[in-house]
Amino acid sequence: MHRAKPLPSLLVQRYHGWKATTYTENKSWYKRLADEGQRPKTMIISCCDSRVHVTSLFGADQGEFFIHRNIANLVPPYEPDGNQHGTSAAVEYAVTALKVAHLIVMGHSSCGGVAGCHAMCSGQAPELDEKSSFVGRWMDLLRPGYERVKDIEGEQAQRDALERQAVLISLENLMTFPFLRDRVESGDLSVHGLWHDIGNGTLEQYLPSEDSFAAI
Amino acid sequence: MHRAKPLPSLLVQRYHGWKATTYTENKSWYKRLADEGQRPKTMIISCCDSRVHVTSLFGADQGEFFIHRNIANLVPPYEPDGNQHGTSAAVEYAVTALKVAHLIVMGHSSCGGVAGCHAMCSGQAPELDEKSSFVGRWMDLLRPGYERVKDIEGEQAQRDALERQAVLISLENLMTFPFLRDRVESGDLSVHGLWHDIGNGTLEQYLPSEDSFAAI
Amino acid sequence: MHRAKPLPSLLVQRYHGWKATTYTENKSWYKRLADEGQRPKTMIISCCDSRVHVTSLFGADQGEFFIHRNIANLVPPYEPDGNQHGTSAAVEYAVTALKVAHLIVMGHSSCGGVAGCHAMCSGQAPELDEKSSFVGRWMDLLRPGYERVKDIEGEQAQRDALERQAVLISLENLMTFPFLRDRVESGDLSVHGLWHDIGNGTLEQYLPSEDSFAAI
Amino acid sequence: MHRAKPLPSLLVQRYHGWKATTYTENKSWYKRLADEGQRPKTMIISCCDSRVHVTSLFGADQGEFFIHRNIANLVPPYEPDGNQHGTSAAVEYAVTALKVAHLIVMGHSSCGGVAGCHAMCSGQAPELDEKSSFVGRWMDLLRPGYERVKDIEGEQAQRDALERQAVLISLENLMTFPFLRDRVESGDLSVHGLWHDIGNGTLEQYLPSEDSFAAI
Repeated sequence: MHRAKPLPSLLVQRYHGWKATTYTENKSWYKRLADEGQRPKTMIISCCDSRVHVTSLFGADQGEFFIHRNIANLVPPYEPDGNQHGTSAAVEYAVTALKVAHLIVMGHSSCGGVAGCHAMCSGQAPELDEKSSFVGRWMDLLRPGYERVKDIEGEQAQRDALERQAVLISLENLMTFPFLRDRVESGDLSVHGLWHDIGNGTLEQYLPSEDSFAAI
Repeated sequence: MHRAKPLPSLLVQRYHGWKATTYTENKSWYKRLADEGQRPKTMIISCCDSRVHVTSLFGADQGEFFIHRNIANLVPPYEPDGNQHGTSAAVEYAVTALKVAHLIVMGHSSCGGVAGCHAMCSGQAPELDEKSSFVGRWMDLLRPGYERVKDIEGEQAQRDALERQAVLISLENLMTFPFLRDRVESGDLSVHGLWHDIGNGTLEQYLPSEDSFAAI
Repeated sequence: MHRAKPLPSLLVQRYHGWKATTYTENKSWYKRLADEGQRPKTMIISCCDSRVHVTSLFGADQGEFFIHRNIANLVPPYEPDGNQHGTSAAVEYAVTALKVAHLIVMGHSSCGGVAGCHAMCSGQAPELDEKSSFVGRWMDLLRPGYERVKDIEGEQAQRDALERQAVLISLENLMTFPFLRDRVESGDLSVHGLWHDIGNGTLEQYLPSEDSFAAI
Repeated sequence: MHRAKPLPSLLVQRYHGWKATTYTENKSWYKRLADEGQRPKTMIISCCDSRVHVTSLFGADQGEFFIHRNIANLVPPYEPDGNQHGTSAAVEYAVTALKVAHLIVMGHSSCGGVAGCHAMCSGQAPELDEKSSFVGRWMDLLRPGYERVKDIEGEQAQRDALERQAVLISLENLMTFPFLRDRVESGDLSVHGLWHDIGNGTLEQYLPSEDSFAAI
């Protein structure tokens, strides 16, 4: 803690730019959000990747999206074991306290976490298999997905399919949370699965009727 | 999974707006980012709160910020126990694989997670004490912070202080990660603590020399 | 005027989304509408409320609905006194120039304007009684409705009934416009009264035969 | 009133389509909006014209935009004379009760109201000059605009300019409302002037620095 440094001047400058424009233009709205609290309609779970900002992709207004970002946009299964589960806490808060109406899981192309999972599962990254690897243990969540794609021809095709599995397995795991399943079944919450291609800018959504992703 | 719904049309329209503007104007850059991978300079850990988007606050360009968002912007201590630690995985990936030069932890005003922690620690929210409460167990990380602020006069003042403790405890916990401490000590990584006021738009940074937060 | 600000970037992005999708897909239709003028079949008078958009409720295509929206979907009686009557002008234009075949007045639940009228008439909102209150003077139009509902048991029930009176009184006032009455009597125009419940999504229509509203 | 007819079956069908899709997908959100009330960030004043729906142009989500629509998107000057002023009531409600952060006035091409004003002011539509013409009396609000454009060469160019004057005069008149001016001066409200071309789908915004409209 005692090593914390002042904010780099570039970011100080940018913050003042935000203050002089976005904040100033929406001052009364920010004040109301502060006084009255947030009321987001949608939760989005996406990756930490610096190339993929859902706030930009979906033109986030202040107060609209409750956003959780982790490596490879993964959701673990429901496991109320008393340990710390940051993602489960975020889901619980969004669904039970904020009562969001939509929950979107979005994956993306050339995901480093997914690539690591593929390398680990195919025996090419023994260091990720070590108990001490936080990334490896986190990507264990996606191992069932590897089983589903390992017989696809070609490594790149396997990784592409695994990125979509990261979305599907998260959607499956979400349904293991009783409080979430209840709201989905009562029609109070709908879930959505997306996959975004960074290079060509396309966006695909999962369609259960066709059990596949289709371009939007 | 089989219950996934198509994306609401409003978000489809907004996505097409992004595609027609931001993407189109930066197409070759997106392609390079896709081909060559990300190279973010900075990792930011902030809250899921829908009112606080660091992408807006710091005018995020594509590829600049590796962003992890969880409830109350918390970082757990280093605990390589083989269990899933999503936040630790994100930190590990940013520091050891991406080799970011800056790591920022940003808290904010009227944080629901911090308010919940305060209520739980002061005996006003027994439901958060239950083993099955993901939010409660996640906010256990901030219990040491409650001990530091509980004697401050006034509940609101305690909560205000606790929001800043959420930043400081995260900074302290970050330093327990050996690979991170090494890079801080070698001067390859600097860490920063911020707190943002939603209503009046101010931004404060932690200054170790004064052991307090000061407006930027 | 000299204080006008640029459009918030979020709305700029959304506009470009509309341009890239809805407009592009209907380009030749928009051009015809521009060249040949509008030919709407229906006029709808509804409330300004942000939760009730008839364009969504009735899947408005371009050129179909001529829409006037004011506080509490009210129509004043025919009063050709040379003063400005925005609602009467809209009705006149729709009926005599555009020759619409249908005219719908739609009210809705939890209407702020109606609640204000109820508070004013029941002596709970003296500020609305002041000459300078535009909302108060506008809601004077609904005073006759208050007289009809004031003996109903329970304030909420009175307000519910008053929302429907806002529709009925508007329909009655519409019939005081000679040019409108003529077209109704000749069978060239039909008028319709609706009331929409925001929370449960139901829609009721006024049935003169039963002198009451019934779910559609 | 007793002449009200049942809703045409086409609209009944469309309503059920809305209920089965938009409503069902956003059910819990609609319930919350009903229970907690609206909190729109923006008021939009636009024309009744059936070819111009801001809900489509700006992808309106439920609860976002408080919308007043009248002939030619006009705002009268502040005149607290105790008479009925529907537009002033809508502005008063949006600014003082809802405390919106943005107020947008949007005009559009081939506006019938503006064309009528031009015809009236240039002596080509004596019927609009009659005291009994609601449209004529309403369009009197734009007479000062005609004075500003009448020396432009060509009738079409005059009408084009007059459509933009309908926006500018409304912005000017808005500033005569003390409660609105106060909020603009304190930075709590920003106003915006737009003009939309139906045929080619472009959108222009008024820039005070250049005293002209420029394409977005």
